[in-house]
Amino acid sequence: MRVFSYQKLSEPQRERLRKMSGVEHAAFLNGVEPDDDPPLEFLNASICFGNPPAEWLLHSSQLKWIQLISVGFGEYLPLKELIHDKGLTITNLKGFFKVPVAESILCGILTLYRQLNHLVHLQSEKEWAGDDLRESLRTLKGNNVVLIGRGSINQQLIEYLAPFQCKLNLFGSDYNESDLNQALKQADILICAAPATPHTNNLLDQNRLALLPKEAIFLNFGRSNIVDTPNLIKMLDTEKLSGAVLDVTDDEPLHDDDPLWTTRNLVLTQHTSGGMPEEIYKKLDFFDQNLQRFRRGEEMINKINLQKGY
Amino acid sequence: MRVFSYQKLSEPQRERLRKMSGVEHAAFLNGVEPDDDPPLEFLNASICFGNPPAEWLLHSSQLKWIQLISVGFGEYLPLKELIHDKGLTITNLKGFFKVPVAESILCGILTLYRQLNHLVHLQSEKEWAGDDLRESLRTLKGNNVVLIGRGSINQQLIEYLAPFQCKLNLFGSDYNESDLNQALKQADILICAAPATPHTNNLLDQNRLALLPKEAIFLNFGRSNIVDTPNLIKMLDTEKLSGAVLDVTDDEPLHDDDPLWTTRNLVLTQHTSGGMPEEIYKKLDFFDQNLQRFRRGEEMINKINLQKGY
Repeated sequence: MRVFSYQKLSEPQRERLRKMSGVEHAAFLNGVEPDDDPPLEFLNASICFGNPPAEWLLHSSQLKWIQLISVGFGEYLPLKELIHDKGLTITNLKGFFKVPVAESILCGILTLYRQLNHLVHLQSEKEWAGDDLRESLRTLKGNNVVLIGRGSINQQLIEYLAPFQCKLNLFGSDYNESDLNQALKQADILICAAPATPHTNNLLDQNRLALLPKEAIFLNFGRSNIVDTPNLIKMLDTEKLSGAVLDVTDDEPLHDDDPLWTTRNLVLTQHTSGGMPEEIYKKLDFFDQNLQRFRRGEEMINKINLQKGY
Repeated sequence: MRVFSYQKLSEPQRERLRKMSGVEHAAFLNGVEPDDDPPLEFLNASICFGNPPAEWLLHSSQLKWIQLISVGFGEYLPLKELIHDKGLTITNLKGFFKVPVAESILCGILTLYRQLNHLVHLQSEKEWAGDDLRESLRTLKGNNVVLIGRGSINQQLIEYLAPFQCKLNLFGSDYNESDLNQALKQADILICAAPATPHTNNLLDQNRLALLPKEAIFLNFGRSNIVDTPNLIKMLDTEKLSGAVLDVTDDEPLHDDDPLWTTRNLVLTQHTSGGMPEEIYKKLDFFDQNLQRFRRGEEMINKINLQKGY
């Protein structure tokens, strides 16, 4: 089988891919930009590893399966009819990032509560605040936490939160609007780890964000489409919200003049939250597992349902 | 009874103290420096709230009880005979800080592992690292953790660590030297939350620190006497240790020219880890509880044993 890797790989990683059972030919992205036309080697491949530009799928004829290297796949939703008609299978990495992302979310909560971001800044300035800070430090114990997204990340996070005796309110895609609004009014912490779908689009608009108490903190580790970012910035800068951690932003990388860089008490984790040692090798291992299932015609792991959007 | 507060109090906090049952006269620290002789109002008091300079005890004759506002009391150990002879009771705040400190320790671990300190610096510089950072981010799951100190802070922390499936090694004052050394050689994380006693003095000297793998991280939330700080700095700066978080330092506040301000991958939390909202009122509540026991001649909460040193 001919495999094309859209994921950039080092030479040892390429070798790992070439040696998988069933790989007859492996081709790699070389100096191609996402805006370019798809290279011939992509068009000749029956399998793609990585997330190719959605437009490339319009031109593909040999392609049977794409192993995404993300959980999210919102960029392919507009092509769901075409993907269905081509009989193209797409698998994602659902569950793959639950441990690192849930650890990053807990880190984000505690960073704002124990003011680690502020302490890091003070250290750069060689400024000792010490005792004067103490009464402004908060504790997580017993807090009201609202979680949006019923996926593996929030499930993992719920395990991590258990010893803190928080009151948890979890909402999935079937959420009841008035229950959500009620929960937001009493939230100390609002956490999003939901995919980009038409259902999540602008779910946290200006009116919903305004329901949060001004002492609340907001963490988004899903997709940025869920929140009205300009309004979030305004609320933080005018102290209508206490703090925020964003792993995902509308632009990635951010432009130099993006106001998010300097928003008050906002921490940017730059879409690193899924990071872990040997991350790419672990993705290749996952791909190899699914490749062997693909060859044997078995059920694939994490086959996505574009109609449902997850 | 005449009470002297060495802890600085706001006017509403003073009023809280004055109104406690049994307080006939309350006096407050006013423009007195620790190096000064004790003021007459201290000498006339039978109860002290706060941590007065140890030398002041040499002059006291009326004093019967000191309610410390800390867990640590190492500064009074050299006077243990005098304190015994005077029949002076000292109570501390054992257990009072376990939740905020254990939350700060977990925050410190995750900050180094998920590189929040680095991400905060990048944000100040408006620098996007994103994907390039991901493989250098570590996860806590399944790590080898060595904890020094069997007190309430580490007990609380152990509850918080439970969902991370770590292998824990806990050492108290009865530690076996070769077991400790063996554990250090395999540690991913070394955490100290132990009091300043002759037993803990320089326990982590140059030789012991050198046992740690260079990937290990070190967190000290007890007292700074336990570690050879100049050597710790050298190890961090020469990458013989991956990172550290220090809540306690030999000097507090740190001098401007202290090398700790700029040590590589070291985070200073400036002795804030016990901080929480309304911390001083909560201390006054605790004092009031013990005061009523004192008046009734009942067993005091958290009476310390200077002979044992805890």
